[in-house]
Amino acid sequence: MQKILISTDIKRLMKSEDNSALQKFCEDKHPADIADILSSLAPTEIWKVLSRIEDQLTAEIFSHLGDETQMKVVSSLRRSDLAHLMTNLSSDDRVDLIKKLPENKQDALLPALAHAEREDIRRLASYPEETAGSVMTSEYVALTASITAGEAIAKIRLEAPDKETIYYAYVTDSKRRLLGFVSLKDLILAKPTTLIKDIMETDVIFANVSDDQEDAARKIGKYDLIALPVVNGNNTLVGIITHDDALDILNQEYTEDMEKFMAIAGKHEAGTYLSTPTLVHYKNRAIWIVTLAAIGLISGIIVHSFSGTLMQLMILALYMPMIADTGGNCGSQAATVIIRALAIKEISTKDAFKVFFKEIKIALLISITLGLLGFGKVLLLSGSKDAPVGYSLKTIAFAIALAMSVQVISATIIGAMLPIFVTKMKLDPAIVASPALTTIVDIIGLTIYFTTAKLMLGI
Amino acid sequence: MQKILISTDIKRLMKSEDNSALQKFCEDKHPADIADILSSLAPTEIWKVLSRIEDQLTAEIFSHLGDETQMKVVSSLRRSDLAHLMTNLSSDDRVDLIKKLPENKQDALLPALAHAEREDIRRLASYPEETAGSVMTSEYVALTASITAGEAIAKIRLEAPDKETIYYAYVTDSKRRLLGFVSLKDLILAKPTTLIKDIMETDVIFANVSDDQEDAARKIGKYDLIALPVVNGNNTLVGIITHDDALDILNQEYTEDMEKFMAIAGKHEAGTYLSTPTLVHYKNRAIWIVTLAAIGLISGIIVHSFSGTLMQLMILALYMPMIADTGGNCGSQAATVIIRALAIKEISTKDAFKVFFKEIKIALLISITLGLLGFGKVLLLSGSKDAPVGYSLKTIAFAIALAMSVQVISATIIGAMLPIFVTKMKLDPAIVASPALTTIVDIIGLTIYFTTAKLMLGI
Repeated sequence: MQKILISTDIKRLMKSEDNSALQKFCEDKHPADIADILSSLAPTEIWKVLSRIEDQLTAEIFSHLGDETQMKVVSSLRRSDLAHLMTNLSSDDRVDLIKKLPENKQDALLPALAHAEREDIRRLASYPEETAGSVMTSEYVALTASITAGEAIAKIRLEAPDKETIYYAYVTDSKRRLLGFVSLKDLILAKPTTLIKDIMETDVIFANVSDDQEDAARKIGKYDLIALPVVNGNNTLVGIITHDDALDILNQEYTEDMEKFMAIAGKHEAGTYLSTPTLVHYKNRAIWIVTLAAIGLISGIIVHSFSGTLMQLMILALYMPMIADTGGNCGSQAATVIIRALAIKEISTKDAFKVFFKEIKIALLISITLGLLGFGKVLLLSGSKDAPVGYSLKTIAFAIALAMSVQVISATIIGAMLPIFVTKMKLDPAIVASPALTTIVDIIGLTIYFTTAKLMLGI
Repeated sequence: MQKILISTDIKRLMKSEDNSALQKFCEDKHPADIADILSSLAPTEIWKVLSRIEDQLTAEIFSHLGDETQMKVVSSLRRSDLAHLMTNLSSDDRVDLIKKLPENKQDALLPALAHAEREDIRRLASYPEETAGSVMTSEYVALTASITAGEAIAKIRLEAPDKETIYYAYVTDSKRRLLGFVSLKDLILAKPTTLIKDIMETDVIFANVSDDQEDAARKIGKYDLIALPVVNGNNTLVGIITHDDALDILNQEYTEDMEKFMAIAGKHEAGTYLSTPTLVHYKNRAIWIVTLAAIGLISGIIVHSFSGTLMQLMILALYMPMIADTGGNCGSQAATVIIRALAIKEISTKDAFKVFFKEIKIALLISITLGLLGFGKVLLLSGSKDAPVGYSLKTIAFAIALAMSVQVISATIIGAMLPIFVTKMKLDPAIVASPALTTIVDIIGLTIYFTTAKLMLGI
């Protein structure tokens, strides 16, 4: 309702020629909200609004538009307008945008930018995706150790408009090597004549350009930072990652984890479910589904190898789905708990034994519960007519329940230990995702099921 | 390696009686790191270190200890020491800690605290878990609109040591109603004589005390905030939530989402996998597993109702696991993609039709792929001897492959649409979690399988 009202407001302002009214309207709200409102307009109309307000505000609102809307707006722009917009974007947003442009557009655009910006883009774009280097911005405040707190505040005041944050400032030497850090709080609390070198924190928490972006984001969380400095191999300060980027990174990583966990391949970019072509969705999903179906051949072969047993004891076929489902569920639960505990560092691979004993205990309790339920289920669903001559239904029910219990224990232990093993191998534990695990647990479960039946019933 | 060295350092410092050396050692590192090092010591030893350093630093390091370690340390303290520690903790950490104490300890402790602190605890503790009110702190900077920027900076400087953040200040009237907000950046950039009311932002982004903590955290992310003010029903400012709390909240919510998704009940508190008793783990997991096993009765009944068909065509039993696994996998994938897209607002329930058509297209492609694979699999694994007299293996393989294709389409559509339907019903889409979905899809899949076979093969 409110959004519609505001959207009407903006349409009215667009019709009038009063740029200052439009500027005031956009200034009074948060850029993220203005971006939300503009998103419902056509790309050319969005630009009509943005081109009439101040450059800095244009850049801020633009950076809050979704990826797709940004691309649509950009493709409707003349080269000179685009170059002008680029100049005003913050350095990390700028390089993100340019990386998304088609190569011929990139080549056409770069010469239109100032030399310093071109160099900045080239430098930032050179870091591989998902590294700390690829998400940092070069717009940080740098100070020298020999100036005073008062001088530092004066310098910060001067540079504030061009910086991503002014609340943290980094102290560097003449070769831009990171020596220390001061917060604006420290500067304000210090006497104006105090030297920076006397108040700076020298034990600086930092990331390396090649660090994983998720590790950098987690550092920001662990140490409650507003920004994290990023250095290269020579300890030269090359950028910072800010707290708001950390939130975005964790959101993105979480989505990718979830999808990996459900065996969906590919990278997840924000805001693209509907716009991603069907064929890309197909490719991302089918890769794993087909792989798993291929692995499923093994369970097919196992069932086939027991087809003699099945022929004799048809009743076993009736409870195959129960064994498979329960095993998959127990394994997935255990894996979820462990993968997550590993991810947030509640446990490490060194705790393998502790986890093993804990899971054994949990599995035993669940297996007794489900074994009893399974026994009751067989007695409830099947009649003595389902039992072939020479076997009592109770004996068969007991064999099925026993197989079920063994399957619960094995599935739980596999689900819990496989992620630890995979982590130990320096792989991402999410690859033992739920579908992959279900497939493995099924193969083992069917073997347990038929073997138990054969041994117990002497077929 | 470094950690061992540091831990040795601290043990050496503990033996000496030089408090200032210990103070300096703890000051030079980030409190989170000191907390990490101390965690390996016994609770009484941790307190031996903390009691010898300055109160403020003690509180900071203490608040970075894990929940369990905190409780162990606290239970070893005398009441007076605990009251003293409480006084120095930030207001949100204080109330978190007190809520975890057993009730008799709470009652014993409260009278030992100053009146103002007691009131603060009582107020903060009154907000229900998971609300914005329950995670906010009352240590924010409040300004009046009539003072100047220079006066505001002087006030902030004075109050800085007791505030959670000084980078955002909130402007309130005499009744503490929220009027506006200024950042320290605004204050520093303004002329010292400018009045606050002339520079304050009046369109303040805020949360209500009763809002969900996750929504509050997402607001901090969306608007790139360092802190979010929290108001009660009368628009009275009652606290703030800081950016670092937002990261913690999102992490906690992710874990709970993941676990819900894998059908694990209960609340997840950070740092507790190993310390949570086996029986609690059992309860959280078994609730769902048992429920699903009960629902699984339905698939048991279905398989039973087709046992005549199975008797005639044993070969169908051999491919039941393939049908079940593939359906579960396809449904889970679709559900994961859609639940996540809903969570990060890529799509809304209004997009139901668009999602439906997109998923139909994806499902068709996957179903053709898997249908062909299924056909080949039957021909590969089974020989003509598996086909009963009167049926060619190819006909049977075709029937199985067709059933597989139908199952892929139905599972994908159910997996995609169910979360949207559940969201529309104002429920959490994560309740159609992977195991729950697998169970539903299995029931439908088995019905499709046997019905297709009966119709095609005329049994």
